[in-house]
Amino acid sequence: AKVQFDWRDALDLEGQLTEEEVMIRDSFRTYCQEKLMPRILMANRNEGYGCAGTSYVAYGLIAREVERVDSGYRSVMSVQSSLVMHPINAYGSEEQKQKYLPKLARGEILGCFGLTEPNHGSDPSSMETRARFNPSSRTYSITGSKTWITNSPVADMAVVWARCDDGKIRGFILERGMKGLSTPKIEGKFSLRASATGMILMDDVEVPEENLLPKAIGLGGPFGCLNNARYGIAWGALGAAEFCFHAARQYTLDRIQFGVPLARNQLMQKKMADMLTEISIGLQSCLQLGRLIDEKKAAPEMISMLKRNSCGKALDIARQARDMLGGNGIADEYHVIRHVMNLEAVNTYEGTHDIHALILGRAITGLQAFTVHK
Amino acid sequence: AKVQFDWRDALDLEGQLTEEEVMIRDSFRTYCQEKLMPRILMANRNEGYGCAGTSYVAYGLIAREVERVDSGYRSVMSVQSSLVMHPINAYGSEEQKQKYLPKLARGEILGCFGLTEPNHGSDPSSMETRARFNPSSRTYSITGSKTWITNSPVADMAVVWARCDDGKIRGFILERGMKGLSTPKIEGKFSLRASATGMILMDDVEVPEENLLPKAIGLGGPFGCLNNARYGIAWGALGAAEFCFHAARQYTLDRIQFGVPLARNQLMQKKMADMLTEISIGLQSCLQLGRLIDEKKAAPEMISMLKRNSCGKALDIARQARDMLGGNGIADEYHVIRHVMNLEAVNTYEGTHDIHALILGRAITGLQAFTVHK
Amino acid sequence: AKVQFDWRDALDLEGQLTEEEVMIRDSFRTYCQEKLMPRILMANRNEGYGCAGTSYVAYGLIAREVERVDSGYRSVMSVQSSLVMHPINAYGSEEQKQKYLPKLARGEILGCFGLTEPNHGSDPSSMETRARFNPSSRTYSITGSKTWITNSPVADMAVVWARCDDGKIRGFILERGMKGLSTPKIEGKFSLRASATGMILMDDVEVPEENLLPKAIGLGGPFGCLNNARYGIAWGALGAAEFCFHAARQYTLDRIQFGVPLARNQLMQKKMADMLTEISIGLQSCLQLGRLIDEKKAAPEMISMLKRNSCGKALDIARQARDMLGGNGIADEYHVIRHVMNLEAVNTYEGTHDIHALILGRAITGLQAFTVHK
Amino acid sequence: AKVQFDWRDALDLEGQLTEEEVMIRDSFRTYCQEKLMPRILMANRNEGYGCAGTSYVAYGLIAREVERVDSGYRSVMSVQSSLVMHPINAYGSEEQKQKYLPKLARGEILGCFGLTEPNHGSDPSSMETRARFNPSSRTYSITGSKTWITNSPVADMAVVWARCDDGKIRGFILERGMKGLSTPKIEGKFSLRASATGMILMDDVEVPEENLLPKAIGLGGPFGCLNNARYGIAWGALGAAEFCFHAARQYTLDRIQFGVPLARNQLMQKKMADMLTEISIGLQSCLQLGRLIDEKKAAPEMISMLKRNSCGKALDIARQARDMLGGNGIADEYHVIRHVMNLEAVNTYEGTHDIHALILGRAITGLQAFTVHK
Repeated sequence: AKVQFDWRDALDLEGQLTEEEVMIRDSFRTYCQEKLMPRILMANRNEGYGCAGTSYVAYGLIAREVERVDSGYRSVMSVQSSLVMHPINAYGSEEQKQKYLPKLARGEILGCFGLTEPNHGSDPSSMETRARFNPSSRTYSITGSKTWITNSPVADMAVVWARCDDGKIRGFILERGMKGLSTPKIEGKFSLRASATGMILMDDVEVPEENLLPKAIGLGGPFGCLNNARYGIAWGALGAAEFCFHAARQYTLDRIQFGVPLARNQLMQKKMADMLTEISIGLQSCLQLGRLIDEKKAAPEMISMLKRNSCGKALDIARQARDMLGGNGIADEYHVIRHVMNLEAVNTYEGTHDIHALILGRAITGLQAFTVHK
Repeated sequence: AKVQFDWRDALDLEGQLTEEEVMIRDSFRTYCQEKLMPRILMANRNEGYGCAGTSYVAYGLIAREVERVDSGYRSVMSVQSSLVMHPINAYGSEEQKQKYLPKLARGEILGCFGLTEPNHGSDPSSMETRARFNPSSRTYSITGSKTWITNSPVADMAVVWARCDDGKIRGFILERGMKGLSTPKIEGKFSLRASATGMILMDDVEVPEENLLPKAIGLGGPFGCLNNARYGIAWGALGAAEFCFHAARQYTLDRIQFGVPLARNQLMQKKMADMLTEISIGLQSCLQLGRLIDEKKAAPEMISMLKRNSCGKALDIARQARDMLGGNGIADEYHVIRHVMNLEAVNTYEGTHDIHALILGRAITGLQAFTVHK
Repeated sequence: AKVQFDWRDALDLEGQLTEEEVMIRDSFRTYCQEKLMPRILMANRNEGYGCAGTSYVAYGLIAREVERVDSGYRSVMSVQSSLVMHPINAYGSEEQKQKYLPKLARGEILGCFGLTEPNHGSDPSSMETRARFNPSSRTYSITGSKTWITNSPVADMAVVWARCDDGKIRGFILERGMKGLSTPKIEGKFSLRASATGMILMDDVEVPEENLLPKAIGLGGPFGCLNNARYGIAWGALGAAEFCFHAARQYTLDRIQFGVPLARNQLMQKKMADMLTEISIGLQSCLQLGRLIDEKKAAPEMISMLKRNSCGKALDIARQARDMLGGNGIADEYHVIRHVMNLEAVNTYEGTHDIHALILGRAITGLQAFTVHK
Repeated sequence: AKVQFDWRDALDLEGQLTEEEVMIRDSFRTYCQEKLMPRILMANRNEGYGCAGTSYVAYGLIAREVERVDSGYRSVMSVQSSLVMHPINAYGSEEQKQKYLPKLARGEILGCFGLTEPNHGSDPSSMETRARFNPSSRTYSITGSKTWITNSPVADMAVVWARCDDGKIRGFILERGMKGLSTPKIEGKFSLRASATGMILMDDVEVPEENLLPKAIGLGGPFGCLNNARYGIAWGALGAAEFCFHAARQYTLDRIQFGVPLARNQLMQKKMADMLTEISIGLQSCLQLGRLIDEKKAAPEMISMLKRNSCGKALDIARQARDMLGGNGIADEYHVIRHVMNLEAVNTYEGTHDIHALILGRAITGLQAFTVHK
């Protein structure tokens, strides 16, 4: 019997998943497609993931389903799981875990992650935020500012990274309401409009010693979190790409020009063939990466490679899809232009396309080309 | 003496302009940069252009200055001059010219242009709007709908194209307030937000015989208008590209990462070299096209070629510039993402990138590939 | 323990192979790298593959190793195994299998495959070669010409496809020496120079009835063979790409310019990051395709997708690598320009890049866009 | 009267040329198309150009016609005129001019230009070749090696650049037969096969004082020559591109597939539309550059910009054209693959695509990014 080609799943991703992965993905897909609306609902539903031992593959499948709806939603999820729960789980004390993780997992509280500073987007080693220890009160006084922080204007708490007296970078848990802490929203952004983005401004915020993450010393701490988040982005961006591909396909099938569906045109079919190919080979690679992480065989550069590939390709696909929708492509009711704008940010955050190229370049050549120093 | 390279004008466009062209451009540039805000101001200031015998080169230079600010503003100007004043001037009766042109030129009234229909974006020959002549009242009853009409929600009048009883397409002047005429706004567009876009819905609108444009029979009428508009777009899109290039240059010079300006990086400089090149050779070609039109030596395919080239390249440049601005690139205060979104529409309207490719393909090969018919 | 990133195997392909696959690949790699020179040696060594039940994954790994050396060698191998042995095995009689397969497998005789005709490169359904049955002699008289036939000038036999009296296309085994058969070499080709390419000219060649492949009726026969060959090409082209990537990496590490290795430059590292990414995700997808074929779960469109992807990407990579070698890149002693020229042919044969786009387009949309007919 | 679009001259380059320029171009075109074969014929015919006061525009038009035939021929011409006659004319003594220029102009002797060294392709400031002055004999002893030298194996003389005792770089005229001078041919190059390329090996070659070019001190000398040559390349590469475009157009018009000419396919027409556009806007810009040089208003960066643009675009066009010729595209009888291979070298020599990007980047930003030094 001839095997039928399925353009929705060109390389049979389905056949490589475990039953459990399919089940998790399906229940999440239904949820995303039918009910995903207010943030709190999603966070609520997220109960269990990240903590409860689902595989990285399952986590990737979830990110893909969420971002199929909107990259902003997936960003909220990435922050909550990879950038807030993960560091507490990996670097936190037992007390910190018990205090924060259950609530974060149930979505009862929302977190954010403060690493990027206004003047050091791609270079966290130049961080200016300082944490000064006060031996008398056994607190840290933190001063500095963080920007482009997803969730910050609405978050209940933040994992913030600062340079300590010994020059080392460490992580702290800050809570809304602390004196000297403000989280103004960044207005006028034309990307990820479904999520709130803001700053974290800290003017001598006094943080109790027990809010220091004890097991994270140096940039390895935040970098571990970012790797986690990037892995989810690699899957998620392809979910957005899939939405755009499917939308363009349906639009060009429905729209008749010069007597035939637009989809009958060679120029349209070539665009779709390219989309299908990149989505299929990208997903296949994400699956392998997920398996490797689950088996503790993944290197960070693998994640860089697929974060970069998925985001760059997804952005191209979304742009092509928008073009295929013609004039209607600029209307938000067709959703594609929203994905285009979202993916601009997704391609930029957690390491730009160029920065990841240089990370890979260093891994390939053994030579760093980030700076002008030899 | 060594000639100094000027990155603002790499191929000395300036030296090829007449004194008058420079003067018009400069006064307009000042106006655009300093005062361009409410639409009416601009229309008012436009007094003279298009009618008063400025050259096509000067017109192109103006379009470039306006679109350097916003493609939406240039769209308003293109419609008023190329799509409303031009057809009245070229195909109208003496009475029509006297009645409308002075007011349009002074910006006292604003017009729009109704050609595109919901189901026939790239194929006006399938137009469904009908104009039925009523011998008794010596009026035409027009029924049909037009969409993606720049200015329609705010225009005082419209030049609308409809198929008559003899199967020929003719143009009519409609005025706001005619019975059966409505112009709903299209909401939710994420492009050209500075200008209003809407539909023109006509339900047996009764139009006096004297509102028929007497000298336009067949699609040559609207196509002549579109060619005019496309010429302006070819210049304008490069103006938007120049803004983005300059903005990215300044941003990367100002922003320090890893101890040097971002602009010191090879990956940044390559992007800028590409931008500069495409802008320079694009402008040079627009200048030659303007000269040819002024000398009545231009063919429509030349305009297709440069409309397509300028728009496609400008969109690429704007996207690259946005990427160079990193996270800040998604904030509207840096303006570049606005240009990105605008250029999506500019690359699509008045003939998509692909449609112009097929127009050129036909001119090159003598074979049409628009339809499935031989 | 931190996992080390291996730029030679970015997504741990190795870890996904069976022990047997690794063993076959390794012995073949050694052979390719050390001894691959005269064609007959290779064919000799090929003893066993294709027939002896190695997996499709193993076959793909072999193709990759051979094409790492030269696409021409892999072409010879593809023809012998996929286009000659495969049809005899799949569509031949027991007598045909016994007569030809052992010798072909041992490389004692070399075969070729005659499908493409001078006027119908991408459209075999318009085939003009005719096979007329002579009831008296129980032979077929075959007349027609085939072109761009790998191996034809040196092959001992050919599987040739012709249209029979009933309008159906069938396959025939022709042997060198048959009257009316000639196989002139095509001179002056600048691609695949390591293999011979020619025509098959047939002027009333009389072929005994028993040389008809009994089980192949219609284009399904040759298409099945081509799918097999394309699968091997999908792997092979990436092998050539890997060679070019590795060569460019080493060259830029060794070559000092402006006081540092060329590889220290951002522009070089970005090219290498792109190469690494496309090779890694391409290989990952080929592996999955091989597994699916082994499990009889592959659809032909999957093969089209990856043949197209591997060839297009490999050609891009080879071109970039050649550019990275600067002036030295045009010298054949650096091998890369040879791969560039080879891949031009590889990207074209067994279905061009564009034809496979339209095959995928049809699978995605359900609408064919090959012809002007609806 | 409607202006007819001419795909051979989309922006009316013809109308912008002087009568004399047209005349020179036409006589040269006839010559190139009909008689250009052995090198010496061409050099002979070249009598007059470069010296006799033809404009830079005319020189560019000639380069375009020659390279329409073969980039190797144009390379010979570039070397003879820009790299040998130009430095003697610009930096030589009266005696040198009288001794060499007339014979060079008549093609009686052939010259070559020795700047590039094996280890310093893009960085002549690291030149290792040394010229040591011998006060007793009033000669210079030159030792060093130059590579990738067009014409060297067959040239009668060479302009060679060497570092003198004062650390300054100066130019010398060497003649074949001098002791210690050898010019081995580089074998196995797959580009510019119509011209000879080799090395210049100098082992204490004794050169009389009067062979020093008196007016060239520092890298300004050779760089002036290179700028001259690059200008010719900018025109020439587009000539090669035009040949490929025209060849692909004719091939796809002649070849019938699926019942219609290949040229009837949208995918083919899009490629041709892109080709036409880039050729047209490239030529238009070269014309303006030529006019500026003639008026002494050109900056070197303008030349970098158009050398880079023309070469990169021509290479793309040639590759696309080769692809459009399908299998036949790899046969040299269709000429296109020869142009593809030639343009690989043309895109690389006299400053690679990337190096010119960095030259432009420096001009745009004021920051050099060639080296790792600030």
